Amino acid sequence: MSTPAVRLAFSRSCRALSGVFPDMEAVLAWFAAKDRRDRFTVRRVPLCALSQWAYLPGPLRLGHCSGKFFTIEGIGVESSCGPVRSWDQPIINQPEIGILGLLAREIDGVLHFLMQAKMEPGNVNILQLSPTVQATRSNYSRVHGGHAPRYLEYFTEPGLATVLLDQLQPEQGARFLFKRNRNMVVAVDHEVPVHEDFCWLTLGQIKALLTRDNIVNMDARTVVSLIPMADPDEPPDYGQLDGVGGFRRDAYLSYCRSDRERHSMDAIMTWLTVGKARHAMRLTPLPLDGLRGWKVTDEAIFHESGLYFSVIGVDVAACTREATRWSQPLLHHHGEGLVGFLCQSHGGVLHFLARGTLEPGNRDGVLIGPTVACSEVAARASRFCAPRFLERFLDPAGLTVRYDAVQSEEGGRFHHFRNRYMIVELPPGLPLDTPEHYLWLTLGQLWRMARHGHVNIEARNLLACLGAEESPL
Amino acid sequence: MSTPAVRLAFSRSCRALSGVFPDMEAVLAWFAAKDRRDRFTVRRVPLCALSQWAYLPGPLRLGHCSGKFFTIEGIGVESSCGPVRSWDQPIINQPEIGILGLLAREIDGVLHFLMQAKMEPGNVNILQLSPTVQATRSNYSRVHGGHAPRYLEYFTEPGLATVLLDQLQPEQGARFLFKRNRNMVVAVDHEVPVHEDFCWLTLGQIKALLTRDNIVNMDARTVVSLIPMADPDEPPDYGQLDGVGGFRRDAYLSYCRSDRERHSMDAIMTWLTVGKARHAMRLTPLPLDGLRGWKVTDEAIFHESGLYFSVIGVDVAACTREATRWSQPLLHHHGEGLVGFLCQSHGGVLHFLARGTLEPGNRDGVLIGPTVACSEVAARASRFCAPRFLERFLDPAGLTVRYDAVQSEEGGRFHHFRNRYMIVELPPGLPLDTPEHYLWLTLGQLWRMARHGHVNIEARNLLACLGAEESPL
Repeated sequence: MSTPAVRLAFSRSCRALSGVFPDMEAVLAWFAAKDRRDRFTVRRVPLCALSQWAYLPGPLRLGHCSGKFFTIEGIGVESSCGPVRSWDQPIINQPEIGILGLLAREIDGVLHFLMQAKMEPGNVNILQLSPTVQATRSNYSRVHGGHAPRYLEYFTEPGLATVLLDQLQPEQGARFLFKRNRNMVVAVDHEVPVHEDFCWLTLGQIKALLTRDNIVNMDARTVVSLIPMADPDEPPDYGQLDGVGGFRRDAYLSYCRSDRERHSMDAIMTWLTVGKARHAMRLTPLPLDGLRGWKVTDEAIFHESGLYFSVIGVDVAACTREATRWSQPLLHHHGEGLVGFLCQSHGGVLHFLARGTLEPGNRDGVLIGPTVACSEVAARASRFCAPRFLERFLDPAGLTVRYDAVQSEEGGRFHHFRNRYMIVELPPGLPLDTPEHYLWLTLGQLWRMARHGHVNIEARNLLACLGAEESPL
Repeated sequence: MSTPAVRLAFSRSCRALSGVFPDMEAVLAWFAAKDRRDRFTVRRVPLCALSQWAYLPGPLRLGHCSGKFFTIEGIGVESSCGPVRSWDQPIINQPEIGILGLLAREIDGVLHFLMQAKMEPGNVNILQLSPTVQATRSNYSRVHGGHAPRYLEYFTEPGLATVLLDQLQPEQGARFLFKRNRNMVVAVDHEVPVHEDFCWLTLGQIKALLTRDNIVNMDARTVVSLIPMADPDEPPDYGQLDGVGGFRRDAYLSYCRSDRERHSMDAIMTWLTVGKARHAMRLTPLPLDGLRGWKVTDEAIFHESGLYFSVIGVDVAACTREATRWSQPLLHHHGEGLVGFLCQSHGGVLHFLARGTLEPGNRDGVLIGPTVACSEVAARASRFCAPRFLERFLDPAGLTVRYDAVQSEEGGRFHHFRNRYMIVELPPGLPLDTPEHYLWLTLGQLWRMARHGHVNIEARNLLACLGAEESPL
């Protein structure tokens, strides 16, 4: 398929609420049936009771005795910007590049994506929908001692499928050190056997599920975020907009009205370059027991203030997973965070307010983030340190809430880490005072920048949520 | 100026051989006049005799006693690809981001760029043409104890000039650890006082100088490489091609015939992602006196084989430089290297054969490099380790040599480090067996990838050299 043909197929799939499953009720019924059986048993245990995990010396860190998977290490951070300029924290170090992959196939003229009902120990509801494959290198190399993930060969063996998209994308820079995954979409033009935990969904059906809390997992959201609703390299195809109105139409046009962009791509690159050149973080490796403000015990690692996150241990028993029983550390998060984009029509085209965002685990300094990304909203809002524009989301009187749902972050590394994701539209012409590290971008521009790895995972998550039918369920 | 207006101005300037200087003879006469006076005295001295530089302990490295400028450190490299999988080497660590900046101004309807006749101790001919500003952070912060570089304020103070281009670009990954500089072009619409060491040149004049050996320095070449000959976002403007023929016309069209590209941008991103995901280098910091094969003495640091490079000391006396006398280490290179692009018409449009290139100092793994980049050609060609396609450059019988000149690498860090840069065109249809880490790209595609920092400095250097009038001098 040529690029325009692929983008057209994406765009059509995005508008399809009917496919192998005739409607969303059937999708939800399938998911509910999966949800009734095969549950994990997840039991919290002290870190010192984790099988094959231990505190390792020189400098003190938490790791697996095989040397594989990941380690939890300490870092000291000196930042040239932000309200807090110096802090210590634990961070996950997993230098390998994994694969988050969606297998696609045209069925009855509509592109479908093979989604997996997958259990992860850290999810509040255990079962969520993941992409076809979410594989770390430890998965391929079978450190689990289990099987290779199903369908992995379509992503790793040349010639088995057509690659539609393959990009390296960064993950949470506040929790992962330099972590990136390949985000892939590959297509086959023939039937493949569908295992009982998998199902074919249209992009429209996935977007509809994204209007609900905690169904589509983070790994699926980041891949979906890279699939454009409309072709950013072509002028709008108004024929495709038949029957599409309101905010969804505005979002579609924000992908392809490149004649109406407020800033040129050159200007956006300049803005990002200035951010990267002006602001930097200096990281120093530290032993876990040398981190200011953190307590390291046999039970857990936690901050004296009770804020941020803690490192806990879980013991997991399952019957359908690659390995049936294992234990591992997870980063437990206490409160709910908020991740939000403000958007507004400029010159008749929807623009999104991006914020240059610097986090210690960013491999390349400042990235393009959403307007607001804030952990522990309740705790922060009650203190002096609420970030700029947070109040527009907490009290959006006079504004239009276009998206509002709670989504879970990676349940294989995080325990009960949820963020409320919001998109709030300002009335056209309402003035907004934006400091220099904020910039208005169209969706086409965000997509172009994301393709090169310049857009952080919080912002990509919000892009994924755009384009659902209004009230589809 | 809007983006299309800027690109049009670039394109016009690229075709202008006449400007403030009426012709190339006048340009060369000005440069020759500069070259007759104010020479540096560069004297080689033992490393231990360098003022304020010393071997520093823990781990052993060579550094300045202020802690500024740069250090020369040891690394061990483990690579997942290439003929040699493991080696040790010294490398330059200079984590700060500098500015390489061209000041531009329209004079009599043609965009001119302010070039500086600048002496650097490592240049074979001392004096070369540099961009308006080449400033490290140590320059701004006056570690030299000298003056701030002239014209720096146009690049650092908001509002003094219009930013036309501002990109972070990587430098030699084989010699610098994670080094990047901002490459900037800024424009003013008024007169500025021109210091006697500076002159206004058109882009066409700079390109003409690039057909000669060792006149335009590396810092100027990397900035020039980012200025497109034609607007890659617009269809070709054949009106601009009046009187432009041959290879120069082909190069122009290779920027903007995006309807005739052999691979889509999605396919190029996929190719690069696969390279980054498959191949990696692991770096271990090592003391300089713990590097396999390297000798560290009071005199110099060098490899037992006599190959690669050595670290030497120089004592410099000058009268026009920011500081009039200083000493510093430089990386001395013995033989001449060769950097070359093969190009060929595919579907009527010129494509360039890029090679996925991995070097230890690359911040983000594999980058897009030229077809061949080879140090010490003579030494390698006589042994078993000549890189693929080198013979096409050394013996281009039946092919057309489109560019062939010797250029110097950064004379502030390297001593007599020269590469022969070549562009060689294959006849259309001549089959070439290209392994999977090679890919054919148009100039427009190379430019698009360069904008996001994906193209290495050797490849960018060749891009800079394209577009000169044939036999302009």
